[in-house]
Amino acid sequence: MKAVLVVADGLGGRPTDWSGQTCLEAAATPHMDALAARGALGLVDPIGPGVRPGSDTAHLSLLGYDPHVVYTGRGVFECLGVDMDVRPGDICFRANLATVLDTDHGLRVADRRAGRIETGHDELEKALNGIRLKRTPDIEVIFRASTQHRGALILRGPGLSTHVTEADSHRVDALLLDVCPTDSDPASARTAAAINDFTRLSYEVLHDLPLNRRRLAAGKPPANIVLVRGASTRPNLPSIESIYGVRGAVIAGGALYRGVALTCGMKPIDVPGATGGLDTDLMAKARAAVGVLDRLDYVFVHVKGTDNAGHDRNATAKLQFIERMDAELIGPIVSGIDHGSTHLAITGDHTTPIDYGDHTVEPVPIVYAGPNVVCDRTSAFGEREAGRGGLGRWSGRVLPILFGYCNWAPKYGS
Amino acid sequence: MKAVLVVADGLGGRPTDWSGQTCLEAAATPHMDALAARGALGLVDPIGPGVRPGSDTAHLSLLGYDPHVVYTGRGVFECLGVDMDVRPGDICFRANLATVLDTDHGLRVADRRAGRIETGHDELEKALNGIRLKRTPDIEVIFRASTQHRGALILRGPGLSTHVTEADSHRVDALLLDVCPTDSDPASARTAAAINDFTRLSYEVLHDLPLNRRRLAAGKPPANIVLVRGASTRPNLPSIESIYGVRGAVIAGGALYRGVALTCGMKPIDVPGATGGLDTDLMAKARAAVGVLDRLDYVFVHVKGTDNAGHDRNATAKLQFIERMDAELIGPIVSGIDHGSTHLAITGDHTTPIDYGDHTVEPVPIVYAGPNVVCDRTSAFGEREAGRGGLGRWSGRVLPILFGYCNWAPKYGS
Repeated sequence: MKAVLVVADGLGGRPTDWSGQTCLEAAATPHMDALAARGALGLVDPIGPGVRPGSDTAHLSLLGYDPHVVYTGRGVFECLGVDMDVRPGDICFRANLATVLDTDHGLRVADRRAGRIETGHDELEKALNGIRLKRTPDIEVIFRASTQHRGALILRGPGLSTHVTEADSHRVDALLLDVCPTDSDPASARTAAAINDFTRLSYEVLHDLPLNRRRLAAGKPPANIVLVRGASTRPNLPSIESIYGVRGAVIAGGALYRGVALTCGMKPIDVPGATGGLDTDLMAKARAAVGVLDRLDYVFVHVKGTDNAGHDRNATAKLQFIERMDAELIGPIVSGIDHGSTHLAITGDHTTPIDYGDHTVEPVPIVYAGPNVVCDRTSAFGEREAGRGGLGRWSGRVLPILFGYCNWAPKYGS
Repeated sequence: MKAVLVVADGLGGRPTDWSGQTCLEAAATPHMDALAARGALGLVDPIGPGVRPGSDTAHLSLLGYDPHVVYTGRGVFECLGVDMDVRPGDICFRANLATVLDTDHGLRVADRRAGRIETGHDELEKALNGIRLKRTPDIEVIFRASTQHRGALILRGPGLSTHVTEADSHRVDALLLDVCPTDSDPASARTAAAINDFTRLSYEVLHDLPLNRRRLAAGKPPANIVLVRGASTRPNLPSIESIYGVRGAVIAGGALYRGVALTCGMKPIDVPGATGGLDTDLMAKARAAVGVLDRLDYVFVHVKGTDNAGHDRNATAKLQFIERMDAELIGPIVSGIDHGSTHLAITGDHTTPIDYGDHTVEPVPIVYAGPNVVCDRTSAFGEREAGRGGLGRWSGRVLPILFGYCNWAPKYGS
């Protein structure tokens, strides 16, 4: 048996998305519809009914872990996702390259994403990794840039804590926020001081960088500060292999998803052209996914474009990405697998409706297909069809159910 | 109000079981179909979505208990199921009468079930209960035979523990396994030593028994050793009567199911001819079930044949047993009850598909019927129909829902 899990980030939507239909319903998706016809549909609450999921917590839950038990924060997945070496005691952060203006009242956030900066990451990394904290010189700072404005940061040293507020207020035009400890222990105060020190030093080393002078000259916002959030340590998870006895790989352009999957023990497959954006090379991902199954038991493919378009409130972009996903990812995967011995699941990690531009609480549609799936009467993949699907509605655990069809699940009890 | 719960072990299946249908779908089940037509269907995950159930954990969950909280292991249900007196501190085991060969390398398991031995249980019991442990003479050993190769064992004495590995490796042709402590406390080491002592002594007292000499002469595998597993103590459960204020009985040929029901406070009803196998006297069970309702509030009827046929990968046997169950158990029960004041539920404790021959993770179909059930549009009892049933999909708690229809459920909150 082999298994394929495809998660389209933010796949689900609302009827307002596209002429009264959701983007998924309005999109032409012949390959996913064919899977619906020979498989079965249902609705999944990624974490639980009425719980509005983050992407990290949702993925943990879909992969079979209880995020209420194992989730430590986002940062560690970002760090693992860009192949940083996360050690016990390390405090990990998601880091944004951002733009601040130096005003009379202090540094003011002008762009949380530094114009989604595309180049110059090496120069930024080098400058940031040269930083030595002044008040806490025994704490090492390690920065790695990811795609666009995204990066990851590790604080390494004795006596650190995750109990600190976020440096990124998620607001534009606000003054730079001081990070505060959220616990009264010395480690939390020390960690907050270290982050505040780092944030200000990042402005000092970045604002006059040749890269940023060129960006200013070109009318682009400079990447002149780093804003961190999601303080976390490495979570304590049993690996998927230790639970099910099978080995698999992750194909994901986004560091966060790659990081979650690595934490669960999946092998990362790097696909050139997999950008984690709307322009990602879906055919290359499909080829890689089918190739993985030659040597491993399962593959988890993540695509991010659906969510990006939802956050951008761009219904056309979301619909077109779904159609491209159907044609260039699902079609080639379905053609490349052995139908008699492969089970497949396609779902989202949450809904990102166009009208709201962020994650919402609704359940997401899911389709399972393969030889052991009891087929239902649905024949199209969409929110409404999933609501009358034969699998009903449940919470999380999409991968354990997929593995159950493959006869890989351990028995609980006797 | 009265209530009837029928659990057909391993009832559910997969589309591969029978010409693209499951055995339940392919079987002619007019009585269950009529219940579907006047009642409502749904899908139950016996323990939770994507959790592959054991029979003991699944039954606890269906009866309204959280197995993650109350389950202590299988052995105690086997002991209670054969009416052994389980006391605080007793360590209970499921015990298999098995066949080993004495080889140069040690005792090798030849048949885990001693040819499903049908006779001579008194002789085996007497020999085994005469065993006195050598290294731990203060530990008493009590053995009771059940049906065929099945039995139950209690270790009674000071300083015992459930933290030991299993003597039954579930593999044939393997050398006899030494039981090891899984905790570092002296009680676990002492318990492991006692089991290893008992296992070897069981071979000493059994291998030359007249019964086994006769079996060898007849070409049958001797019951020359006892292999134990499922170490457990009596779980701490509130009785069904203490929760709902109603009293009921269990009718089950298999000791395990009888034991689970006794643990929950049900009264056991012994029905001659109820074998816990494919040959069980279903009409006798139906008569007994209807009779119970004259004097008690509810009855739980367990049939095992569906699961046996699934484990044996025998689609014809499973289909025929389901048809016989419909005609000889469900039909007579439906005829014998007062429809205006009785609620009825029929489900399985897990799926046992023919192609896999063991429990799988899929949800099981369920039908509820009775005066307070909101009827849906289904008209047949099967996996696909249950997937479009009016009750949707949920986890466990089949008995509390049945009792809810009877207006027996306690209010949580005010």
